Amino acid sequence: MTTTKLVEQIRKKNSFLCIGLDVDLDKIPKHLLSEEDPIFAFNKAIIDATHHVAVAYKPNTAFYEAYGLEGWNSLQRTIRYLNDNHPEIFTIADAKRGDIGNTSKMYAKAFFEDLGFDSVTVAPYMGKDSVEPFLAFEGKHAILLALTSNEGAYDFQTQQIEGLELYKKVLETSKNWKNAHNLMYVVGATKAEFLADIRKIIPNSFLLVPGVGAQGGSLTEVCKYGMNKDIGLLVNSSRGIIYASNETNFAEAAATAAQTLQTAMKQILDAR
Amino acid sequence: MTTTKLVEQIRKKNSFLCIGLDVDLDKIPKHLLSEEDPIFAFNKAIIDATHHVAVAYKPNTAFYEAYGLEGWNSLQRTIRYLNDNHPEIFTIADAKRGDIGNTSKMYAKAFFEDLGFDSVTVAPYMGKDSVEPFLAFEGKHAILLALTSNEGAYDFQTQQIEGLELYKKVLETSKNWKNAHNLMYVVGATKAEFLADIRKIIPNSFLLVPGVGAQGGSLTEVCKYGMNKDIGLLVNSSRGIIYASNETNFAEAAATAAQTLQTAMKQILDAR
Repeated sequence: MTTTKLVEQIRKKNSFLCIGLDVDLDKIPKHLLSEEDPIFAFNKAIIDATHHVAVAYKPNTAFYEAYGLEGWNSLQRTIRYLNDNHPEIFTIADAKRGDIGNTSKMYAKAFFEDLGFDSVTVAPYMGKDSVEPFLAFEGKHAILLALTSNEGAYDFQTQQIEGLELYKKVLETSKNWKNAHNLMYVVGATKAEFLADIRKIIPNSFLLVPGVGAQGGSLTEVCKYGMNKDIGLLVNSSRGIIYASNETNFAEAAATAAQTLQTAMKQILDAR
Repeated sequence: MTTTKLVEQIRKKNSFLCIGLDVDLDKIPKHLLSEEDPIFAFNKAIIDATHHVAVAYKPNTAFYEAYGLEGWNSLQRTIRYLNDNHPEIFTIADAKRGDIGNTSKMYAKAFFEDLGFDSVTVAPYMGKDSVEPFLAFEGKHAILLALTSNEGAYDFQTQQIEGLELYKKVLETSKNWKNAHNLMYVVGATKAEFLADIRKIIPNSFLLVPGVGAQGGSLTEVCKYGMNKDIGLLVNSSRGIIYASNETNFAEAAATAAQTLQTAMKQILDAR
């Protein structure tokens, strides 16, 4: 999906909500465990109940790989369900991949061609030739880790290289890579105060912002400092939506939680 | 597997060779494509022909994910074949994972518990809480990316933070993390001249060294600067061994290529 089409969807739905499908069998409602594919059954119910207020879904691959072959099958069924039934939805494989060039090319093939995601999150540590293979697909996107929402972000990402924090160096450097128009960036909502500086470096890029909700980030702060003329934000919530209830009403509860966030987003968009 | 047991195997086999199982269906012998699981058939033949001269195997997950569900199945069959038939072999999932704490825990579960690997490669960008979940398993290892073999390593890894290159900062910082005795590090053979400095920071840790062979690294240089009292090295070769021939004699050709490297390793060990 092109960013133009993504922006259209955001304006149409008055929402820049991304829902994280981080499915843990210990946390989903017990009655689903007797389903033939509990993870897919859970995802399908969540998607059916929330797709009218969300513009993107983001399965984190760790939660699928933990269940081996069955988990990978659930991931495949989930992305195919989204692509077949909701082609207007932007899909993100939260996989944090990255390797030497010919290997990154295989990852790009896995996520863009075999599974059919619109985008994949990528770690920047190995530099240019580990990221560019993901950027060679038109209408597909690499979402590069810049400043993550966790405590460990302070170990290296905020350390200064010649007066510039590593995450800013990642932004400055990567914006000159080939097909950089297919780059987006991960910036954690827990560090919203950094967004103003980040926007000075990459005014036009889309930002995927995790950390609103369970991790404590503020939607208002994120929008205040991170929004650009094309909105330019995908704000993710995972646990706060998908585990809003673990009873039989889990899908309705997820819809209510998603609707609450979308209403807040609409107010912010209306006030601009 | 504990490092003590790994060192025993190295001394017994006079080899610190790791063979990279980066299986590309475009590169394997054509006659295997009619097999029910060509990737596993290829790996099994390579393992059967080379296990007497190798101490470790390293499938890179990208090459399996690129073939979707079937690829993940081939990966699972490969690691199970190794664990069932060659429990003395050290196994590495070259996956370059890393995410926020509760997510890294799911990756650790995927690779250590579900698949049964001895170790997994991990990217350091997200810091301490993204790596420590991998270190909580006794007898299992996180192999942290320090200085990689590709050109992109110069984009960020060799940039200086307060007079210390980022990769050295990664070494210095990570050696104080909880259960750091379960840490190993990736250092590319193409940058062997950096190994002397690296050994000053982490004298005792095992290093996984890719880049000998196809990527141009020198075994002699790597050993000169990187070997410690317990050997402390796993030198990886992928393409140079597994694609030594793409005819029906591919396994014998792989055995010859592996044997040549092992002979060179034995000479180095004997000369100490």
